[in-house]
Amino acid sequence: MKIALLAGDGIGPEIMAQARRVLDALELSDLDLAEADVGGAAYRKHGHPLPDETLAIARDADAVLFGAVGDPGCDNLERHLRPEQAILGLRSNLGLFANLRPAKMFPGLEDMSGLKPEIAREIDVLIVRELNGDVYFGEKAMRVLDDGRRQGYDFMSYAEDEVRRIAHVAFRAAQGRGGKLCSVDKANVLETSQLWREVVIETAADYPDVELSHMYVDNAAMQMVRNPGQFDVIVTGNLFGDILSDQASMCVGSIGLLASASLGERQTQYGTFGMYEPIHGSAPDIAGQGKANPMAMILSLAMLLRHSLGLEDKAAQVEAAVAKALEDGVLGGDLGGTAGTAEIGDAVVARL
Amino acid sequence: MKIALLAGDGIGPEIMAQARRVLDALELSDLDLAEADVGGAAYRKHGHPLPDETLAIARDADAVLFGAVGDPGCDNLERHLRPEQAILGLRSNLGLFANLRPAKMFPGLEDMSGLKPEIAREIDVLIVRELNGDVYFGEKAMRVLDDGRRQGYDFMSYAEDEVRRIAHVAFRAAQGRGGKLCSVDKANVLETSQLWREVVIETAADYPDVELSHMYVDNAAMQMVRNPGQFDVIVTGNLFGDILSDQASMCVGSIGLLASASLGERQTQYGTFGMYEPIHGSAPDIAGQGKANPMAMILSLAMLLRHSLGLEDKAAQVEAAVAKALEDGVLGGDLGGTAGTAEIGDAVVARL
Ligand SMILES: CC(C)[C@H](C(=O)O)[C@@H](O)C(=O)O
Ligand SMILES: CC(C)[C@H](C(=O)O)[C@@H](O)C(=O)O
Repeated sequence: MKIALLAGDGIGPEIMAQARRVLDALELSDLDLAEADVGGAAYRKHGHPLPDETLAIARDADAVLFGAVGDPGCDNLERHLRPEQAILGLRSNLGLFANLRPAKMFPGLEDMSGLKPEIAREIDVLIVRELNGDVYFGEKAMRVLDDGRRQGYDFMSYAEDEVRRIAHVAFRAAQGRGGKLCSVDKANVLETSQLWREVVIETAADYPDVELSHMYVDNAAMQMVRNPGQFDVIVTGNLFGDILSDQASMCVGSIGLLASASLGERQTQYGTFGMYEPIHGSAPDIAGQGKANPMAMILSLAMLLRHSLGLEDKAAQVEAAVAKALEDGVLGGDLGGTAGTAEIGDAVVARL
Repeated sequence: MKIALLAGDGIGPEIMAQARRVLDALELSDLDLAEADVGGAAYRKHGHPLPDETLAIARDADAVLFGAVGDPGCDNLERHLRPEQAILGLRSNLGLFANLRPAKMFPGLEDMSGLKPEIAREIDVLIVRELNGDVYFGEKAMRVLDDGRRQGYDFMSYAEDEVRRIAHVAFRAAQGRGGKLCSVDKANVLETSQLWREVVIETAADYPDVELSHMYVDNAAMQMVRNPGQFDVIVTGNLFGDILSDQASMCVGSIGLLASASLGERQTQYGTFGMYEPIHGSAPDIAGQGKANPMAMILSLAMLLRHSLGLEDKAAQVEAAVAKALEDGVLGGDLGGTAGTAEIGDAVVARL
């Protein structure tokens, strides 16, 4: 079992170190770990945020564990050299088309949410975001029109196969959860959404046990504040998914606890190839101070064990250890506590 | 002074009737009112949600007061015949490029928000949304690709003049408010946003007194939950504005109180040509029952008086009357009260 470890920038290396301790403590046999540079760290060493060697190591693995990228020192670089481009490059080159972002309120942490506790308590949604298409990867450019005006443009599109494969992922996820799927689009304005909606409806025929609904993205952004508890699984395109999943995280409040998976089509010997990362960023302001909360990173590892290595038991064991640590009051600074990075790592390892 | 009255569907006619009573009570001289059909109501009578005659009446006026459109009976019509298309048609045909959506917490109504009261209390933001461009009005179609796959696509773009004119509106609005402007885009992914950001920065040179910042749309959706009080004026494109402004309304909670203006470039004898509408929809479930809260409609009239007729005093008078009615506990069902449509109209008129 090969795992590529891409720690990245800012707090990435610190939280990755704790995830690694948890991994060590699980004493898995036949584990092959390969570290590689990514983001600003890679740019400084190799002149590119996603060096070929890193991509090769990631491609060769059964799963990729990813820390965070983002480096204020790179802000003035051309866009294609900025750390964030490494994420886009990994997603497209590795065919990671299905982004799974669970957002669930942790008991006792309702106060962390900006929402009223009685609303926040109900949040338990899985956002399934398409990650390889939409306006993200269409033709795009800056140009000067015939009349001399500058214009920026981006081509937004979805083809039926792109929608179908993400719809299948979402329907299957709904079967494994509450049986409800809400597809979010803007079909009253966009043809891309019209196609999206048609294909989702076609795909629904294979899942008579899942209750499908449709919602416009503006309404979804409202409902996520008014009554997020109404959602079970949401499936949506790349752009809307970017916005809604971040909004949902903030509704939960404790973004230091939220993990994500980006799955590809390739089946490995053990499960589905994928990349796993905390949803928070590189937090350069607290980097290197031992203050970062590694729980989202550790929970990302749990997702990796489940989806890519087929180790459901180990995944559940890690998740239970994190939940127990939280219950026992082991809280990072982001949750109003005082526990440092290593201390939280210790606490989780001790509860495995 | 010519005002076109487009009541539309659902609760539209009821709330329009109350706005009209308020207008009558102001006893403006030289007022010329022209009613016209729009939305599902227009489709049923004339076979189109935006008949030519309606467009002509609107174009000929100094301002348009718009109720709401949306009619479940029209759900199965082809897209171009659905009620909502009337809004898009009015926006593009009348050149209404600047959508102003103020979202402010009304004192005493913090409980209506999904956010914690201490966070909700701080909301006082004006969202300036571009309304004539972006992926809304680019080339779009459904097609079959050479390899036989169906694809839906939409062309997203902004040209520099489109960005510049909305940026000017936003900077001027910021000058008249807290002096802070946050431009929201997705410049780390979209060339359209890259151009947007460049032009906003260029325009800033004319407004040294305004503090300009930039935020990615996913972060803005988070910040709108975490700390909406940080925003003064937000300027953004058509698509992001659609999502963020609805999210902001729900953060305020009382969407029955929120008004909007959509301004064009044309200057009339009295002010700027524009269309004014409540941000809530046609609420077909309570239509015709005398239950709808007409306050957002009346506050839209106030915006009309201010921006299109240059009657700042009258506008302030109407707004004060609504605020006084709220203070006196005249609350519609949407705000947990029992006051009906006409009763609220009475209360506002009595307090003018
Ligand atoms: C960094 C950026 C390109 C990325 C995105 O927009 O997808 C990020 O916001 C995310 O959601 O992972
Ligand atoms: C009805 C729809 C086309 C419209 C939009 O997306 O602009 C609406 O959501 C709005 O915000 O006014």
